[in-house]
Amino acid sequence: MTRERLYLFDTTLRDGAQTAGIDFSVEEKIVIAELLDRLGVDYVEGGYPGANPTDTAFFEAKRTTAATFTAFGMTKRAGRSAANDPGLQMVLGSAAEAVCLVAKSWDYHVRVALGCTNEENLESIRDSVEAVVASGREAMIDCEHFFDGYKANPDYALTCAKTAYEAGARWVVLCDTNGGTLPSEVMEIVGKVTAHVPGAHLGIHAHDDTGHAVANSLAAVAAGVRQIQGTLNGIGERCGNANLITLVPTLMLKSPYKDRFELGVSAEALADITPISRAFDEIINRSPDRHAPYVGENAFATKAGIHASAILKEPETYEHVPPETVGNRRRVLVSDQAGKSNLIGELARLGIAVDKADPRLDTLLADVKEREAQGYAYEAADASFELLARRRLGEVPRYFDVHSFRVMVERRFNAIGELVTVSEAVVKIDIDGETHMSVGEGNGPVNALDTALRKDLGRFQSVIDEMELTDFKVRILNGGTDAVTRVLIESYNKRTHKRWFTIGVSGNIVDASFQALIDSHTYTLLKAGL
Amino acid sequence: MTRERLYLFDTTLRDGAQTAGIDFSVEEKIVIAELLDRLGVDYVEGGYPGANPTDTAFFEAKRTTAATFTAFGMTKRAGRSAANDPGLQMVLGSAAEAVCLVAKSWDYHVRVALGCTNEENLESIRDSVEAVVASGREAMIDCEHFFDGYKANPDYALTCAKTAYEAGARWVVLCDTNGGTLPSEVMEIVGKVTAHVPGAHLGIHAHDDTGHAVANSLAAVAAGVRQIQGTLNGIGERCGNANLITLVPTLMLKSPYKDRFELGVSAEALADITPISRAFDEIINRSPDRHAPYVGENAFATKAGIHASAILKEPETYEHVPPETVGNRRRVLVSDQAGKSNLIGELARLGIAVDKADPRLDTLLADVKEREAQGYAYEAADASFELLARRRLGEVPRYFDVHSFRVMVERRFNAIGELVTVSEAVVKIDIDGETHMSVGEGNGPVNALDTALRKDLGRFQSVIDEMELTDFKVRILNGGTDAVTRVLIESYNKRTHKRWFTIGVSGNIVDASFQALIDSHTYTLLKAGL
Repeated sequence: MTRERLYLFDTTLRDGAQTAGIDFSVEEKIVIAELLDRLGVDYVEGGYPGANPTDTAFFEAKRTTAATFTAFGMTKRAGRSAANDPGLQMVLGSAAEAVCLVAKSWDYHVRVALGCTNEENLESIRDSVEAVVASGREAMIDCEHFFDGYKANPDYALTCAKTAYEAGARWVVLCDTNGGTLPSEVMEIVGKVTAHVPGAHLGIHAHDDTGHAVANSLAAVAAGVRQIQGTLNGIGERCGNANLITLVPTLMLKSPYKDRFELGVSAEALADITPISRAFDEIINRSPDRHAPYVGENAFATKAGIHASAILKEPETYEHVPPETVGNRRRVLVSDQAGKSNLIGELARLGIAVDKADPRLDTLLADVKEREAQGYAYEAADASFELLARRRLGEVPRYFDVHSFRVMVERRFNAIGELVTVSEAVVKIDIDGETHMSVGEGNGPVNALDTALRKDLGRFQSVIDEMELTDFKVRILNGGTDAVTRVLIESYNKRTHKRWFTIGVSGNIVDASFQALIDSHTYTLLKAGL
Repeated sequence: MTRERLYLFDTTLRDGAQTAGIDFSVEEKIVIAELLDRLGVDYVEGGYPGANPTDTAFFEAKRTTAATFTAFGMTKRAGRSAANDPGLQMVLGSAAEAVCLVAKSWDYHVRVALGCTNEENLESIRDSVEAVVASGREAMIDCEHFFDGYKANPDYALTCAKTAYEAGARWVVLCDTNGGTLPSEVMEIVGKVTAHVPGAHLGIHAHDDTGHAVANSLAAVAAGVRQIQGTLNGIGERCGNANLITLVPTLMLKSPYKDRFELGVSAEALADITPISRAFDEIINRSPDRHAPYVGENAFATKAGIHASAILKEPETYEHVPPETVGNRRRVLVSDQAGKSNLIGELARLGIAVDKADPRLDTLLADVKEREAQGYAYEAADASFELLARRRLGEVPRYFDVHSFRVMVERRFNAIGELVTVSEAVVKIDIDGETHMSVGEGNGPVNALDTALRKDLGRFQSVIDEMELTDFKVRILNGGTDAVTRVLIESYNKRTHKRWFTIGVSGNIVDASFQALIDSHTYTLLKAGL
């Protein structure tokens, strides 16, 4: 049986950017677009060129390799032509390959929010779609408030959808903008729409205000739509958008979807979806949801006393899908076996071959477990993991020993009466038995420590000069008085163009930063073959 | 039209206790049972008397006032009578008014996990239900793995359900133990079961492994079941159980449910559901999910520039239910896309009435925009926003002036040769013209600053002692050398039980932290009416 193609439209960078507390920079958008290409979505909606300087800059170039690079915009205003609508012209002047325009489809909002007539709104839809098509781009219309609009005035909502389709829109997307529609209603209303616009040209855009964004997306597919809009980890305004990270595994692993449909996501990308989800959380500096379907750290974890022994007998009968198909792993709290083979796999990936019977493996495993219990997260810090492993296997030279450091941050008035904040660090290290003591200043304590550390590194100086710190992330792991701080530092080698992450954990943020800093310096020296 | 009664069965204290990281004490269980009575659930499943000392102690007395106090247990073992099964007798010796026994209904698990015959398992179900009924209690059976069991051997799964019902079980609960069943399958299978056991005696127990726990519960109701099992805030093993906090508002506010069914939850209790949800998070020491349906802090929050002015015109057309019906509130977030009307709305919410023509509004708006461009995110820091606004309107006294501060972090060997990291801060402030200079130590630089700052605050001391810092978040806004650090501090007042967020932005992390810290101290004083 031939499977039908189902299209994924990601709006993390546009509707996801409406999430309270989220504010993407151009650089972050570029990295997220790469993640989306890695997953294999069909469309990446990158933002609204012209609406703000970030989105305008992001759309100066095509930012995807596989996915169709899509701009968001609005249909032209009533009373002016598409050619004279500056907003629409900004979108058409961008590097987008496809354009998704939002249009009103609830007559009430046409009157209240747009202040124009129903017929003028239809004309805006028609003219705007035609302008997008004439520019050589794929055109889509997001029918805003479609379900509420349909309930209030089905004829007008349908006419909006039909108008867009007949004007040449590749996709007409039915949006549950307020997020209050339930699956049974979605199924019923989409069923009615397919009598007017073919399902192969319909999309669904669901929000999670009743916890049904995923269920509504699947209900719409069951009723005929062939495009799903959603976001990474379900970010989005209010309660979020449909979570593509949940939808993709269900569509690929569960009947009837896996038998009826085909996505642009490969089985290999599916097996990478847990790392993709976690990488995205790192970018937005959010703790991954440990209970997230498929990708959460606890998604395949069992604490159950009454189940534990049975699970060990036949784990697969207690799991709805095999965890490895989604790049996750089983965690049964009584077993170490998974840990060890896991570890060997990780080491192999780093090019470290160890015999399964090597007793140092058990030491390393115990070490990793103990440190992860303290708050280290090695999956986010490859370089620190590699250092830890190679150290246990005796492969890392002691390039230098740190005696002590001291950092001072002071806010005071300077000689000309300005309030200034200064950071100063002193670092004392031993290299080849000789003590080096250096002092440095910086914007903040970590920068001052780095400046001091790299000031006098003797014979390592030229190698360290190739490396620079490019990012720094801090997360507090427990609240209150016993808070533990985890610091992740991203470093970059200007000569080799490699990037790596190191980690430090401590009750003291400066101490945690220093650990990550030292790991990064050590890793630089190790990779230089010293 | 008479509405049918739908029953809510809460298993927070039993299945919810399987959540990784959760471990209830007897005292916590008592407080949670009170919360559940306050909500108005019909059954509170309190645990498994006999399985551990906590649950045994909890079942020494009836712990609910309105809800039926329910114990969990297992059907008797094969080869012994109910009277001779110590596990079952512990349950029957407890203060429970109802007993819910888990039974296998997947023939594969009968063989592998129980190691008995299918007929022996049926006999265990029959005899155990009869023993519960004979003890004068309401009997229920949780059919474990019912949906997977049904798919493997429908006849046997159905026979298990029928056997329980015919032996006198008030409820036969269909459990999706592995959580992998989708709504369409739930609807189809429940439909088949109702031909053998009346829907008025059927319950649903769903898990969230595909993000469908809520949707599956509603699908089962649509197919005929009249009892829903779930937990507060959806806690539970792996990805959690069906979230009663999401289900209750949907059942009471949305068609067709509100028209067809009646719950034991009053409209007043529904309007208390946001505080109940947050109180439960307090008990389990977890940050509330800001994006949770209905009760999340962002559930009725909008950041959207393109929507904001329309929302203020007719907010209800942008909300799927009125926020006050679930005890939540509307928030129009201040962001750099904000306009003047947005700002006035936000000020009104804070109880600050300003005339639209007041020129100070323009100054404030320009200020907010400039500071947001620098990296401040006021939507995440209500308290700092309120301070900024009230300052521009001349309403915040200068409680103290900060002269200078100095923080030192040092890592060195102490007197007994251990490597230690110490943080020390000195703060110099003026209160009522008098200089106060204090020194404090802490786990890290921010803690040391807070310790120093609160050491000598003169007449403000007792008010500041009520406040504590509960969380600290750091985000680096630009990479590289011109990095800007944004710090968010969460504070808590132990007397008023209020929480608030303050923000600081600087190239120096310590400086940014200090700004947020000072805002939190100032906010505490302002709210104390000083």
